[in-house]
Amino acid sequence: MSSVEVRDQHPEPAPSLIPTLPGSYYADPAIFGHEQSRIFGRSWFAAARGTDLPTPGSFRKVDVAGESVLIVRGRDGALRAFLNVCRHRGARLCVDESGTIRRNLQCPYHAWTYGLDGSLVAAPNLTSMGDVNRDEYGLVGVALREWLGAVWVCLAGEPPSFEDTVRSVVSARLGDEGLIDRWGIDELAVGRRIVYDVRANWKLIVENFMECYHCATIHPELTEVLPEFAGGYAAQYYVGHGAEFGEGITGFTVDGGTGFGTLGGLDEAHDRRYYAITVNPQVFLNLVPDHVIFHRMYPMAVDRTIVECDWLYPREVIDGGADLSRSVDLFHRVNEQDFAACERCQPAMSSRAYASGGVLVPSEHHIAAFRDWVAAAIGGGDGRHD
Amino acid sequence: MSSVEVRDQHPEPAPSLIPTLPGSYYADPAIFGHEQSRIFGRSWFAAARGTDLPTPGSFRKVDVAGESVLIVRGRDGALRAFLNVCRHRGARLCVDESGTIRRNLQCPYHAWTYGLDGSLVAAPNLTSMGDVNRDEYGLVGVALREWLGAVWVCLAGEPPSFEDTVRSVVSARLGDEGLIDRWGIDELAVGRRIVYDVRANWKLIVENFMECYHCATIHPELTEVLPEFAGGYAAQYYVGHGAEFGEGITGFTVDGGTGFGTLGGLDEAHDRRYYAITVNPQVFLNLVPDHVIFHRMYPMAVDRTIVECDWLYPREVIDGGADLSRSVDLFHRVNEQDFAACERCQPAMSSRAYASGGVLVPSEHHIAAFRDWVAAAIGGGDGRHD
Amino acid sequence: MSSVEVRDQHPEPAPSLIPTLPGSYYADPAIFGHEQSRIFGRSWFAAARGTDLPTPGSFRKVDVAGESVLIVRGRDGALRAFLNVCRHRGARLCVDESGTIRRNLQCPYHAWTYGLDGSLVAAPNLTSMGDVNRDEYGLVGVALREWLGAVWVCLAGEPPSFEDTVRSVVSARLGDEGLIDRWGIDELAVGRRIVYDVRANWKLIVENFMECYHCATIHPELTEVLPEFAGGYAAQYYVGHGAEFGEGITGFTVDGGTGFGTLGGLDEAHDRRYYAITVNPQVFLNLVPDHVIFHRMYPMAVDRTIVECDWLYPREVIDGGADLSRSVDLFHRVNEQDFAACERCQPAMSSRAYASGGVLVPSEHHIAAFRDWVAAAIGGGDGRHD
Repeated sequence: MSSVEVRDQHPEPAPSLIPTLPGSYYADPAIFGHEQSRIFGRSWFAAARGTDLPTPGSFRKVDVAGESVLIVRGRDGALRAFLNVCRHRGARLCVDESGTIRRNLQCPYHAWTYGLDGSLVAAPNLTSMGDVNRDEYGLVGVALREWLGAVWVCLAGEPPSFEDTVRSVVSARLGDEGLIDRWGIDELAVGRRIVYDVRANWKLIVENFMECYHCATIHPELTEVLPEFAGGYAAQYYVGHGAEFGEGITGFTVDGGTGFGTLGGLDEAHDRRYYAITVNPQVFLNLVPDHVIFHRMYPMAVDRTIVECDWLYPREVIDGGADLSRSVDLFHRVNEQDFAACERCQPAMSSRAYASGGVLVPSEHHIAAFRDWVAAAIGGGDGRHD
Repeated sequence: MSSVEVRDQHPEPAPSLIPTLPGSYYADPAIFGHEQSRIFGRSWFAAARGTDLPTPGSFRKVDVAGESVLIVRGRDGALRAFLNVCRHRGARLCVDESGTIRRNLQCPYHAWTYGLDGSLVAAPNLTSMGDVNRDEYGLVGVALREWLGAVWVCLAGEPPSFEDTVRSVVSARLGDEGLIDRWGIDELAVGRRIVYDVRANWKLIVENFMECYHCATIHPELTEVLPEFAGGYAAQYYVGHGAEFGEGITGFTVDGGTGFGTLGGLDEAHDRRYYAITVNPQVFLNLVPDHVIFHRMYPMAVDRTIVECDWLYPREVIDGGADLSRSVDLFHRVNEQDFAACERCQPAMSSRAYASGGVLVPSEHHIAAFRDWVAAAIGGGDGRHD
Repeated sequence: MSSVEVRDQHPEPAPSLIPTLPGSYYADPAIFGHEQSRIFGRSWFAAARGTDLPTPGSFRKVDVAGESVLIVRGRDGALRAFLNVCRHRGARLCVDESGTIRRNLQCPYHAWTYGLDGSLVAAPNLTSMGDVNRDEYGLVGVALREWLGAVWVCLAGEPPSFEDTVRSVVSARLGDEGLIDRWGIDELAVGRRIVYDVRANWKLIVENFMECYHCATIHPELTEVLPEFAGGYAAQYYVGHGAEFGEGITGFTVDGGTGFGTLGGLDEAHDRRYYAITVNPQVFLNLVPDHVIFHRMYPMAVDRTIVECDWLYPREVIDGGADLSRSVDLFHRVNEQDFAACERCQPAMSSRAYASGGVLVPSEHHIAAFRDWVAAAIGGGDGRHD
């Protein structure tokens, strides 16, 4: 399939340019506050890799919607998540980013002590604890699921369906319910992790990821590997479509050279293709024949987003001491190119020229679905916020 | 008296844990704004030591409730306080922290000139000043009292009773009206001053000072000197009670070794005891046999407090060149341990886990009085702020 | 005319000191926001010198009322101004402060391309652009005028009369409609540009410039050259009056020594005089026999103002390699002295001592007109803001 064929698949261009979200959605701290509580505080949020917590007692501290969340692997091997706040007088239980808890979680202020399951097990001078309900004063729990090797948490008391809001989004994009399993992502290991501190609103990053109209302008290496991207159409637009490697390209690497073979579950239909998937609100999946690139975004402020990006490979590739640099460099460059573009847009979001937003060209029209999803989630049904 | 006896004095434990202030009281800048105007702008506020202003013309610039206040010693030897603002066009009269005014206070912008009593004495081109009321354009005065060697100021037009809100608080804690005079604090000199910049709300610091439930966990040196503190009960809870030195402890020093004797006015009943007193909203007094430790807090932001701590000794101890380090180090370590704990609580104050606050265990129940005092002072009668 | 005569011209002193704006006008970010939209967003704003943009394709990026504005010289030699925002997805078109555009303005994100006249000339995949109205998606234009060699822009859709709000202000001050032309300012070149970052509200800087009551206190060099300024009366108060050089002063230089002759259009009436003119809201003009000093203010925050100051000389003086330092140093020192005074006032603007403002002495009474102009412009008709 060539880029010409892709264009042929494209429906009749829409008769006009359609609007983006208004500029205030990207610049107003009050709207960011609504997003934190109504989007990130209520959605399944990929916060870590399961392998980041290898043994009983392993913990990792992450920021989710303004909350410090502790993810802890219990004695039983299960992962659990809690708010990182002592129930007594509010001290942070952990201030390190990650580490291992020897026995229990003990608050360093007054020594209240919690089990790895979050239950209150001891407090000085309350030995009998006759009138203290241990359950009532256990750590505040956070819902947790594991899928694709990622740890997904949800702050909501009643989390939305994981099936409907995460799994089925991936299936719908690939056009096949079981297809994602072929990449065996939960068996892959982190070959490289790069953390980007991006001075842009998280939605600029999502919208950038969803379209390829910019590819010809800012991604020379990527369009070399995936020539159809030079045409400006995003693979995400077409259900089940993966962008095909160009002629002479033998791997998803910065120079198009050979990578690390093909993941075990993949067949010919996928061994020269790139699939991009967006899982609202903060995950990007990039599937290529020999590895997977997994982005997790942490929105920190209306104009700042931390992006944690993992390059995942079979354990044996990493353990074999393979040189991953050409493999990693391709998408690392794409990331840097994309984030620079987003940072260039951020300061204009508060301009009167962008008060009612910008426009989407026909090859970007699918971004309108994201726009409407955001507007609905924070309460403005018509894509405009009061 | 041993720590066991102290426990015996303790009333029947309350049947349940009672709530602290909600987290917003420690994290919301709007509530901090209310506190500045309704608490610190209306209370007697210890702003300096009288000896910081040794001679006529001495001045000291301090921050009180967001105002820059000048304390000045007049030609008549009396201290007076003024807002540090020229009445003409608003220039700061002094920008140095302290110093000596040679003759008058002259504004460096247009040369309006004020006497050390704040009166306007000259202004260029207004030599006759026929129609300028000199009193009307004198510096804005701030009420001032001296007690315990401290300079207390109050921004309110009608300050509250000093007797009721300061003196009687000290008497009530010690259980004896004249007892405080035995330490002769106004005759003591500053042996050491340490200024701490604490990234925590001022109320976390007050609450920390009021309880000793944390002492066993974070104050190894202090509990060595005062073993009953390891039991978790705050001496402040018991009217007239001072915590007793442990066996073998010969002074209030970092290693329990001998200090500098006993202050002249003290008798046997106080020569091996430590008394802590909180004077709302910003003074802590620590009385030990041979010195006094005097804390003054300056709240700067909802999450930042400057604490100025003086170690006070008889003039002859200081002039004799005594090595104060072991004496100072004990409470300096306590300060550092306490402030680190407060800084660890601050970031969790805005967590949903702390939205309705934490809890007070029975040995902290007396903190509820502070909680209610704060809530009443800023307008929420039931301890909850609208 | 001596300073005595100036005093004689002075009307009967007002019977009392009259008020300035309230302190909140200088300290409240919300009022600064109103000023940005209602004053700086609606007024003619001197943003650059025409000679800053020497050739077709020259551009300069300036901040006006929170907007990034691009000033561009077209192929036809004319200057035009645009908001620095791509109409597609909002990227900043230019991030450099100034430079030269080779051909067109191309957005670096998706390659939308604009002519130097702001029209949309190309966009990838929209080659036919059948349904895209090129005018509708051209850059947002900003009104522009050139006068006195300055580039004046106005963000308003319907700019106010340039004649009424700029030209006639200069004429009214000089008392003669054509007089300003004698300095030939549009023919002068920039001999020196100094940019000051002042930590003070822009109105403190204007008010400082409008009065000379402070001159005796803070400007020793200036009052040496212009002795009448030591008397405290501002030349701006008297229509048509220029302050006269002192005896023995042969030029407007830091030591009163000879400058660079007399500009061609000037006659005896102006060859030993200094004229200061304020053009609301952000321009100061200083006219002396041999050069012109032109201040442009860029208000950045309620407590921060960038001041760009140009010293303008005939081209031949500059090209002849003259040493400008004594000429520049006089007003550079005045600037530094003034801005330090303004910075000293800024922190007191939020004091309760300044809640209802300060006072204007009789020789400052003309500042009341500026006060009323500001209050009316942002909506408080009586000089007090709701």
